[in-house]
Amino acid sequence: MNRARVAVVGFGVIGQRLADGVALQEDMELAGVVDVAPTLSTRALREVGMPYRLFVAVAQQRAAFEEAGIPVSGTLDELLGQVDIVLDSSPGGVGRANKQIYEARGVKAVFQGGEKNDIADVFFHGYANYERGLGKDYLKLTSCNTTGLIRAVACLDREAGVSRVIVTIVRRVADPGDTHRGLVDVAQVDPVPSHQAVDLMTIMPHVEATGLLVHVPTSHGHIIHVIATLKQPMAPERALKLFESHPRIRVVRIKDGFNSNAALFRYAREPGRKRADMYEIAVFEETVTVSGRELMFAINVPQEAVVTPETMDAVRAALSMQTDRLDAVGRTNAYLGMA
Amino acid sequence: MNRARVAVVGFGVIGQRLADGVALQEDMELAGVVDVAPTLSTRALREVGMPYRLFVAVAQQRAAFEEAGIPVSGTLDELLGQVDIVLDSSPGGVGRANKQIYEARGVKAVFQGGEKNDIADVFFHGYANYERGLGKDYLKLTSCNTTGLIRAVACLDREAGVSRVIVTIVRRVADPGDTHRGLVDVAQVDPVPSHQAVDLMTIMPHVEATGLLVHVPTSHGHIIHVIATLKQPMAPERALKLFESHPRIRVVRIKDGFNSNAALFRYAREPGRKRADMYEIAVFEETVTVSGRELMFAINVPQEAVVTPETMDAVRAALSMQTDRLDAVGRTNAYLGMA
Amino acid sequence: MNRARVAVVGFGVIGQRLADGVALQEDMELAGVVDVAPTLSTRALREVGMPYRLFVAVAQQRAAFEEAGIPVSGTLDELLGQVDIVLDSSPGGVGRANKQIYEARGVKAVFQGGEKNDIADVFFHGYANYERGLGKDYLKLTSCNTTGLIRAVACLDREAGVSRVIVTIVRRVADPGDTHRGLVDVAQVDPVPSHQAVDLMTIMPHVEATGLLVHVPTSHGHIIHVIATLKQPMAPERALKLFESHPRIRVVRIKDGFNSNAALFRYAREPGRKRADMYEIAVFEETVTVSGRELMFAINVPQEAVVTPETMDAVRAALSMQTDRLDAVGRTNAYLGMA
Amino acid sequence: MNRARVAVVGFGVIGQRLADGVALQEDMELAGVVDVAPTLSTRALREVGMPYRLFVAVAQQRAAFEEAGIPVSGTLDELLGQVDIVLDSSPGGVGRANKQIYEARGVKAVFQGGEKNDIADVFFHGYANYERGLGKDYLKLTSCNTTGLIRAVACLDREAGVSRVIVTIVRRVADPGDTHRGLVDVAQVDPVPSHQAVDLMTIMPHVEATGLLVHVPTSHGHIIHVIATLKQPMAPERALKLFESHPRIRVVRIKDGFNSNAALFRYAREPGRKRADMYEIAVFEETVTVSGRELMFAINVPQEAVVTPETMDAVRAALSMQTDRLDAVGRTNAYLGMA
Repeated sequence: MNRARVAVVGFGVIGQRLADGVALQEDMELAGVVDVAPTLSTRALREVGMPYRLFVAVAQQRAAFEEAGIPVSGTLDELLGQVDIVLDSSPGGVGRANKQIYEARGVKAVFQGGEKNDIADVFFHGYANYERGLGKDYLKLTSCNTTGLIRAVACLDREAGVSRVIVTIVRRVADPGDTHRGLVDVAQVDPVPSHQAVDLMTIMPHVEATGLLVHVPTSHGHIIHVIATLKQPMAPERALKLFESHPRIRVVRIKDGFNSNAALFRYAREPGRKRADMYEIAVFEETVTVSGRELMFAINVPQEAVVTPETMDAVRAALSMQTDRLDAVGRTNAYLGMA
Repeated sequence: MNRARVAVVGFGVIGQRLADGVALQEDMELAGVVDVAPTLSTRALREVGMPYRLFVAVAQQRAAFEEAGIPVSGTLDELLGQVDIVLDSSPGGVGRANKQIYEARGVKAVFQGGEKNDIADVFFHGYANYERGLGKDYLKLTSCNTTGLIRAVACLDREAGVSRVIVTIVRRVADPGDTHRGLVDVAQVDPVPSHQAVDLMTIMPHVEATGLLVHVPTSHGHIIHVIATLKQPMAPERALKLFESHPRIRVVRIKDGFNSNAALFRYAREPGRKRADMYEIAVFEETVTVSGRELMFAINVPQEAVVTPETMDAVRAALSMQTDRLDAVGRTNAYLGMA
Repeated sequence: MNRARVAVVGFGVIGQRLADGVALQEDMELAGVVDVAPTLSTRALREVGMPYRLFVAVAQQRAAFEEAGIPVSGTLDELLGQVDIVLDSSPGGVGRANKQIYEARGVKAVFQGGEKNDIADVFFHGYANYERGLGKDYLKLTSCNTTGLIRAVACLDREAGVSRVIVTIVRRVADPGDTHRGLVDVAQVDPVPSHQAVDLMTIMPHVEATGLLVHVPTSHGHIIHVIATLKQPMAPERALKLFESHPRIRVVRIKDGFNSNAALFRYAREPGRKRADMYEIAVFEETVTVSGRELMFAINVPQEAVVTPETMDAVRAALSMQTDRLDAVGRTNAYLGMA
Repeated sequence: MNRARVAVVGFGVIGQRLADGVALQEDMELAGVVDVAPTLSTRALREVGMPYRLFVAVAQQRAAFEEAGIPVSGTLDELLGQVDIVLDSSPGGVGRANKQIYEARGVKAVFQGGEKNDIADVFFHGYANYERGLGKDYLKLTSCNTTGLIRAVACLDREAGVSRVIVTIVRRVADPGDTHRGLVDVAQVDPVPSHQAVDLMTIMPHVEATGLLVHVPTSHGHIIHVIATLKQPMAPERALKLFESHPRIRVVRIKDGFNSNAALFRYAREPGRKRADMYEIAVFEETVTVSGRELMFAINVPQEAVVTPETMDAVRAALSMQTDRLDAVGRTNAYLGMA
C-alpha cells in the first residue's frame, strides 16, 4: 500500500506534535502543515530549514509569512488536493468551519478534543474503541486528560472489568509559554461531573463514571487520582504489571525522584527528546492501592504530546490501514519509539 | 466557675488566631501570648495598642522587643504561674521541648497538628471525640486539613454511618506572605496514604480511610475531594441539609461565584472580618453527588483559622468546663459568632 | 455647605473600596452603589445588612438580585437624580458609554484609569495637580500603578525638583480571587515605554519619564523600582524623611519582615482593617540609595485600594469643596485615618 | 596539543550542562562526572546508555547506584588521577571542602557562582577578563545572573565605555522540576545593592554599579532591566547591532512572540535542542532605548545553561589553551554551535 498522505491544519502546541508524529510514521507522509500567521512555531520551522512544507489557509496570509522570511508552499486548498486525511488541530470551534471545506473536497479528517462531539462520526480512542473508527470519514479524539485516563482504565478493564470510575483531576491551566490564560494563587473547582468522566462513559459505555476537576496554576501535566471499581479483584502488584507492560504507560517511583508533573517534564528533557515531549502517561507507583473492590492510583498526563499516539491510531482506523486494533496501535508505538 | 486562664505560646499564623479565639470566649481569659523575637505579628500588636500582653520565652529575648518598641510583660515562666492551660502553637517539634516546661509547672497544654501524636494523652477533635479529651492534661489537635475533613465526615457519620473514606487532597503549600516555603509550577504527589487519612482513622477508628495528597502552588485553602461510603443510603439533598445545619460548615454555590479557594478568601474579606479569617469549611454545592453507596463532595479548608474552634473545644474538654459534647462546641461556636 | 452626594457605579474591586472611602468622608454622603448582576460583592453587602443602598443599571436587572435575596433600591436613573457626582468604576471602556448618561442628566463624574484619557476634561492626581481639577465636570484618575508612583515622585519633586524618572514595574497580573486572568510561570515583558511612564509625563509635564513593565504571577501588589534624577542633590536619609512625613506613604524595613508585596498584605490583615486594604504605598527602606544625581528606591503599590484617596480628592476638586490642595488632601487623609 | 582532560564534580542542573558542554568541545575530553547518589540526572544517563562515565565521591556510595542499575566507573580519587582540571558544580559551599582534595592531588579547578569569591585566585568571566584567568589554578565563575549581565555590559563597554550600571533584576526563584524551593504569590525584595551589581564591579572595576533584585515565582529565566551610563553616546540601533553581532547574545522581538522568559524557553524546545537549553541571553528589541547618557534594555538570562560557555572559557584560560581572549571564546562558541 502507498503511504498515507496526511496534512496538519493548525500548527500550535498540538499541531506541531502531530506533524512530528506523522513524520515518524514510516507508512505515512506529512504532505504539509497549515497556519494562518507567523508564530514562534513557524519561525522555529524556518530556523531549522523548513523540514515541513508550510501552507496558508487563504492566499492573503502569504505576505505576512514572506515578510518574516518563512517560505510558503501554497494554500490549504492546494494542499487538500494532495492528501488522504487532515489532522485538524485548529483552535477549538474552528474545526467545525473547516469541516465544510474538507467535506467539499472529499477529504477525511480527525478533530481534536476541543471540538464538540457531533462534529464527527465517532468519538475515538485507539486502545479503547479502535474498531469503531474503521473506515469512518470524521473522527474526534478525546481530550488530553481523557486520552490519558482511558489508557489506564481500558488497560485494567480488559483484564478485570471496570464497572465504575471516580476521578479527581488536578488540571494544569496553561502550557509552558502561554500568556493568554492562567491562574494566580487559585485552585478553582468545577461542578461535578467533569466532562472527562462523561467522555469516558461515551467511549466506554459499560462504565459508570463521575469526578471532580480542580484547576491549578501549573503548566507541566495533569495529575489524575483514579478510583476504579473492578469486577474481579486485583492486587496492586498485578495492576503495576499491567501498567508496566503497556507501551503508552510508564510506571515511575516517587522515591526515585519522580514526585511531580514537573519532575517528569524535567526528566523528559534529559535524554534529549525533541522538546522534552512525552507520549506516555506516568503511573506513580507508591499511589497504587486497593480498598475493597476499588483499585486506586495517580497518573500524570503530559498534555502537550499525549494525544499524538492516539491521533496516529485514528489515521490508521479512518484509512483502514490496519483492521486489527493491536496491529494498529503497535505500529504507531513502534514508529514513535514506544516499543 | 471562674474563667479559664489561657496562654498562647508561639504567636505565628496559628497562635495569633488562637489568641483571638480565646479573647472571644466569654468564659476564658487570655492571660498572655509568648514569642521569641519581634515579627510582623508582634509589630502589628504594638500598632493597635497591645490588646494582648506579650511574654518572652526567656528573659534575654526581652531586649530585641524593647528595641522594636514592643512592650514585654514578663517571661514564659512568669506567665505559666498565671494560667490553667497553654495553647502551644510553636513551630513543629518545639512543642515537645516545651512540654517538659509545662509538666514541671503542672500546667495543662493543647498542641497543634505539627507535633507527633505521642506528645499528648489524646488526639482530639471537638466534634468527633470530645469525650475522650475530658480532664486530660495533654491534648493534640488534628492538622488543619484533617480538622476540616473530620468535621464533614463526622457530620455524615452520626446520621448514616461512614464505613470508608477516600480523599484526594489538593494542598496549598504556603500561607499568604510566606517566603520560606513554596512551589513554582509544580503539582507534587505524595505516597499513599496521606497522613490525613491515617489521622482520620485514629480519631474515627471504625472508618477505613486512604487517600492521595497533591501539593499545589496556592496559599488560600486546601481543596479536598471526599468519597465517603455510607452504611445507609443518603441523597445529596439530605447531605446538603446536614452540612447547612452544621455551625462549622458553610454550603456555597459555584454558580454564585464561590468557585475556588481564593474566591472564599476574597469573600471573607468583604464583611470586614478580622484578617478575612474563616473558621468554617465550605462545601461546594454542585460537587455533592452519589454513586452507589458512595457520597462525594468537595470542601475548602481555610488553613489559617480552621483549627481555632476545635482548639477552643480542647480547652473546654481538658478543663472539664463542659462534659457534654454539644454543650461544649455550642459555646465555642456562639462565642466565635458561628451560630 | 451640605454634604456632597456621591454615587458609585460599578461595584467590583475598585467600586467597593470607593464606596467605603466615600462612606468614611464626613463631608460626603454615599447615595448608593450600582451594579448589573449579583456578585460576591453584592452578596457580601446583603450578608452584612445592606449598609449601602444598591441600584441597578436598568430595571430588568432587578429580578436577578431579588432572586438572590439582595434588595434593590431603584435604578441608576433614579439614583442620578439624587447625586452631585458619580464615581464610575465600571469595567474599562464601559465608562465612555456611561458618560453620555451622566451628561444627559448633568451629573459630574470621576473615571478610573481603565478609560482613555480623552473621556475627561483633566487627567487627575490629588497630590500632583489638584488645582487642575477644580470645578471640572469630568476627571480621570491615574491607574493604580501610576497613582502610587506619582505620590512618591511628586513628593521628591516639590522638595528637590525631578527632571527624569526611569521605572521598572514588576506588575501583579491578578487580584486575589480572580479566575479570569493570570499567568503561570511567566515573566512577561512589554515594549518600552510603559504607559505608566507616559502617564506620569502627562500629569507632570516637566519630567521626562520612561520605563519597563514586567508582568509576574502574583496578586498582592506592584513593586516599582524608581530611578529619579533630581535637580538638587538629596541624601537617602532626607528622602526617607520626606516619605515618612507623607500621609499616603509608609516607610517599611525589610529587616523587620516587610520583605515583599505579600508581607505587606499579610501585615495589613493584622490590625483588623476592613479587607486588609491598604491606601498607602510602601517604600522599602533598604532600597533607598543614591548614585550621582539619581535617587533610587523601590515601592509597593497595593492595587486594590491605592486609588481610593486620590479619588476622594477628585470629588473635592470637581465640586470645589476645597480650593487649596493641601486642605483637600488633608481632609481626605483625616477621614480615611491616614493622619 | 593533547586534548584537555576534564572532570565534572556534581551532576545537578549545572553539572549536567557543563558535562555536555565539555563533550562538545573538540579540544577537550570529558573524563567523567561525579555524583553522590542516584538522581533523575544519573537515571537519565543510564536510560541513554551512559554516554558519560560516572564516578562516586567515595566508594561507599557505589552500592546505591548499582542497586539502581547505574554503572559506576570508579571513585573521585581515581578520576582525579586522569584529569587536568575539575569543573566543580557541587551545591554551594561544598566546593570549598572539595578544593582541599583537588589541591592535594594538584588538579586545577573551576568553581561556580555559589561559592565565595575567596575560594579562587580569580573571579572570572570569559568575555570581560579572560586574560586574568590565564594559567591560574583556581577560578570562580560569576553567577548565572551576573554572567548574562556582564556579557551585555562588556559588549557596550568595549565600544563606548560604560561608567555606571543600574539594574533591576526580576529573578526566577526555582528551576523547572524543583520541589525544594519556591515562592507562592510573592514578589520578594532584597536590600540594595544586589550581589550581582557588586560582582559586576569586581569583574569590571571601572564601572560603578548598583541595583535591586526582586524574586518572583517563575522558573524559566531571569529578566534584567539594565540602565547603562555610557561615556560615548550610542543610538539604540547601534546597540542592537552590537548585541546582534555578539555570539552569546540573541536579539528577539516582542512582536514576534518573544514576549517573556517562558516564550524563550518554549522556543528553545522547538529546534530540538537538547533539553531546550539556551546558552544565549536574549535582548528584547522593543526595550532598547536611550535617555540622555543612559542606554536601557531588558535581557533574559536562561539560568540553567547560561554559564556553560564562560565555564568552557575558564578551562581554556586555566590551562592556557589559548592566550588570546577572542581566540578562546571563539573556539568555545564554535564548538557549542553559537557561530
